[in-house]
Amino acid sequence: MTRIALALLALASSTTLSAQRTAPPQPAPVDPRVATLRDAALKDELAYDIVEGLTTEVGQRLAATEAEARARTWGVAKLKALGFKNVHVETYQMPVWLRGEESAEVLAPFPQKLKLVALGNSGATPAAGLTAPVAIFRSYGDLANAPAAAVRGKIVYVGNAMVPTQDGSSYGAYGPARFVGPALAARLGAAAIIIKSIGTDHHRNPHTGVTNFPDGVTPIPAAALSVSDADLLERIADRNQTITLKLVLTPRFAGTGTSGNVIAEVPGSDPKAGIVLVGGHLDSWDLGTGAIDDASGIAITTAAAKRLLDGPRPKRTIRVVWFGAEEPGGYGGKDYARVHGSERHATAGESDFGADRIWRYEVNLPDSAKPIADRLQTALAPLGISRGTAVGGDGTDVGPTLALGVAAIDLNQDGTRYFETHHTPDDTLERIDPEQLRQNVAAWTTMLAVVANAPEDIGPVTPRR
Amino acid sequence: MTRIALALLALASSTTLSAQRTAPPQPAPVDPRVATLRDAALKDELAYDIVEGLTTEVGQRLAATEAEARARTWGVAKLKALGFKNVHVETYQMPVWLRGEESAEVLAPFPQKLKLVALGNSGATPAAGLTAPVAIFRSYGDLANAPAAAVRGKIVYVGNAMVPTQDGSSYGAYGPARFVGPALAARLGAAAIIIKSIGTDHHRNPHTGVTNFPDGVTPIPAAALSVSDADLLERIADRNQTITLKLVLTPRFAGTGTSGNVIAEVPGSDPKAGIVLVGGHLDSWDLGTGAIDDASGIAITTAAAKRLLDGPRPKRTIRVVWFGAEEPGGYGGKDYARVHGSERHATAGESDFGADRIWRYEVNLPDSAKPIADRLQTALAPLGISRGTAVGGDGTDVGPTLALGVAAIDLNQDGTRYFETHHTPDDTLERIDPEQLRQNVAAWTTMLAVVANAPEDIGPVTPRR
Repeated sequence: MTRIALALLALASSTTLSAQRTAPPQPAPVDPRVATLRDAALKDELAYDIVEGLTTEVGQRLAATEAEARARTWGVAKLKALGFKNVHVETYQMPVWLRGEESAEVLAPFPQKLKLVALGNSGATPAAGLTAPVAIFRSYGDLANAPAAAVRGKIVYVGNAMVPTQDGSSYGAYGPARFVGPALAARLGAAAIIIKSIGTDHHRNPHTGVTNFPDGVTPIPAAALSVSDADLLERIADRNQTITLKLVLTPRFAGTGTSGNVIAEVPGSDPKAGIVLVGGHLDSWDLGTGAIDDASGIAITTAAAKRLLDGPRPKRTIRVVWFGAEEPGGYGGKDYARVHGSERHATAGESDFGADRIWRYEVNLPDSAKPIADRLQTALAPLGISRGTAVGGDGTDVGPTLALGVAAIDLNQDGTRYFETHHTPDDTLERIDPEQLRQNVAAWTTMLAVVANAPEDIGPVTPRR
Repeated sequence: MTRIALALLALASSTTLSAQRTAPPQPAPVDPRVATLRDAALKDELAYDIVEGLTTEVGQRLAATEAEARARTWGVAKLKALGFKNVHVETYQMPVWLRGEESAEVLAPFPQKLKLVALGNSGATPAAGLTAPVAIFRSYGDLANAPAAAVRGKIVYVGNAMVPTQDGSSYGAYGPARFVGPALAARLGAAAIIIKSIGTDHHRNPHTGVTNFPDGVTPIPAAALSVSDADLLERIADRNQTITLKLVLTPRFAGTGTSGNVIAEVPGSDPKAGIVLVGGHLDSWDLGTGAIDDASGIAITTAAAKRLLDGPRPKRTIRVVWFGAEEPGGYGGKDYARVHGSERHATAGESDFGADRIWRYEVNLPDSAKPIADRLQTALAPLGISRGTAVGGDGTDVGPTLALGVAAIDLNQDGTRYFETHHTPDDTLERIDPEQLRQNVAAWTTMLAVVANAPEDIGPVTPRR
């Protein structure tokens, strides 16, 4: 050993001792194969091709309708053409809700039409419509505090003051007006409920979405005004005159129908290492063409998996699922967990928050697999993605699987724009920014390359919450 | 005379001589009373109040309908309350066109619904709809060059590549697809025509607007797809399969109805000096609430006139007209010229291009009144408004009056955003930027203060074109 080598050894020992004392984080090295896959994905064309194809050749894909069935057929053909293995559909039965006529008209004091759309699971007015005075509540809290006498027989209006947030947290804050407002109004004896759309825009595209009436609560007509129309109604209310509204909503429950998950795989070399589950949802609301919700999610995860499919066989099987019927209540995710919950899954993660750039990742990994999160940090950093401190585990579709104790890896998209067009007629191809879409593909490719080949065992975890 | 005074005189003479040789422009001084009015108008609240009131308390104001009549009633009450003189309505008769049902559905190759709206003066399909193959023309030029055999019996689609322009010139470049495309398609034997909206957005709010079928040409169903839906249809066409479309459009011509102009005045001290005519149009298309088209125009001109009303009596009478029925063909402007064309008008100008900031003014003034344009230049400069070199004389409403030889003063708004929501359901209060609206009021106030009090005679001119 030369004096120089001895000196280097001494230096190394000193560094190790110092690290033991102060534990400064040492960046995990990035596997050059991961970096190569990541950087190539920044030129991805497949994800855009999938979004363009699905929105153009299928369009809206309401759950359990023939449109969603056509989308599954489209998906099977696409995934087979791309070379995925074990491509198949798994169907299940679910209740079907279909939109009907929907219109609203202020009869007094200032006659004019308003734009609105029924919420999923809405009840119906008589075909000729329902005319009643409007009870104005500027927030869900105001409705929650209202006496039944202020609501009974009225068309209840509930406003909100939703603002954009990067992490989508304002959806949780203002969403209850839609999630549970209609059931509350029904319990209080309202004739119907119209809410200000759960959205951050100021346009005339109303935001639909599902609501729920628990057993024992008869569904009432429930709709969302566009944000602009809601603000108009509030300005009329500011004039302190009784507002009379005519409402026509004729949705219907159409019994039981078939939905399904489309499944495809990149086979791994080690079946015991567990499946890496990724995907998005294939169904959409019926107003737009479901580009950001969620053609982009299936496109991003499929395009990323395709990059692994085209390389050396990964250690773990990557399973891509195009979940069905997410919007009306996560039926596809529940059915997946029912059928596949007993298989060993290493991790699960979904993309269902548009196609704007990923800014953060969060994980829920067992102690044995912690180094994976460190390697993700250095591998994702060049994409502008930082490490979040919360416990991961987002998603309606992978939720039932995660609840079984499967480790989670979330890649969080910037949601600042998402609720401008979420669930509106305006959720179309134009909302996709191809450059940001490619960044998403690069992030998911990186994640798959790291996780599917990780030497660590990835065992069960305690699910978040 | 001191030596200093002599020296100054010599300098002045030298400057005068030099000016005669090279004619450098000397800024016209700004009357302090004009500057005071202008600067106070930058805090205007009235224009927004009028737009808010009209869009909230009346809403859409389709020409010759009871909604437009309600708007006139609203206008008379407002103008009287503001203290304007000689407030009255002048009615006239005109043909009435009313929107009906409107829907479109791709039946093959990729079944899905498209969003569209009928164009004003559109013919109707059978109530059950019309089903036909689509003939795709990517531009009006392509249709103009098409043989009748490519059009006969088809639903003609005409695309465009409109982009935003500050001066609105792209409306002239791409508008013919709407203005004359339907008549051309009808002559060639088309079953119907659907155009890509004449708009610069990429959303799902279709742009309506009037079209015309000359005598002898039977109206065919004519509608505009939203820009997003048109792009979708073109992407389907890119797949090179025959597109079959089902179209339902049931507008109708409803005989003759009453429209009218609302007129108000700020009386001048010198009746012989001629009227300063300003205004905008009260009617709107029926899809939105007509905020930028054109509640803002009547609001801006009225708010400016109100500032003169509240000061010393001007030399010239300022006449504010809220023209009726501009959209279907400028009926109000024609009736105004018929009734009032024999009165002496000094100048005429209208505001009908939204409410974004004014960036330029252009005039058509007689030689005797040229100094007015110079004074406008220095008075408007602090508002960021520069002098245009073309001959002024814009406007559908004041057009028939200008054609009689009345001098013109145009205040040009920035039209970059205008065609995003022009004639769409999204033309609502939210499109108004209060700060830019105030700049408009300040510019019109400045113009009125300069022109209504100008000592120069303002005689007739040769109309533009």
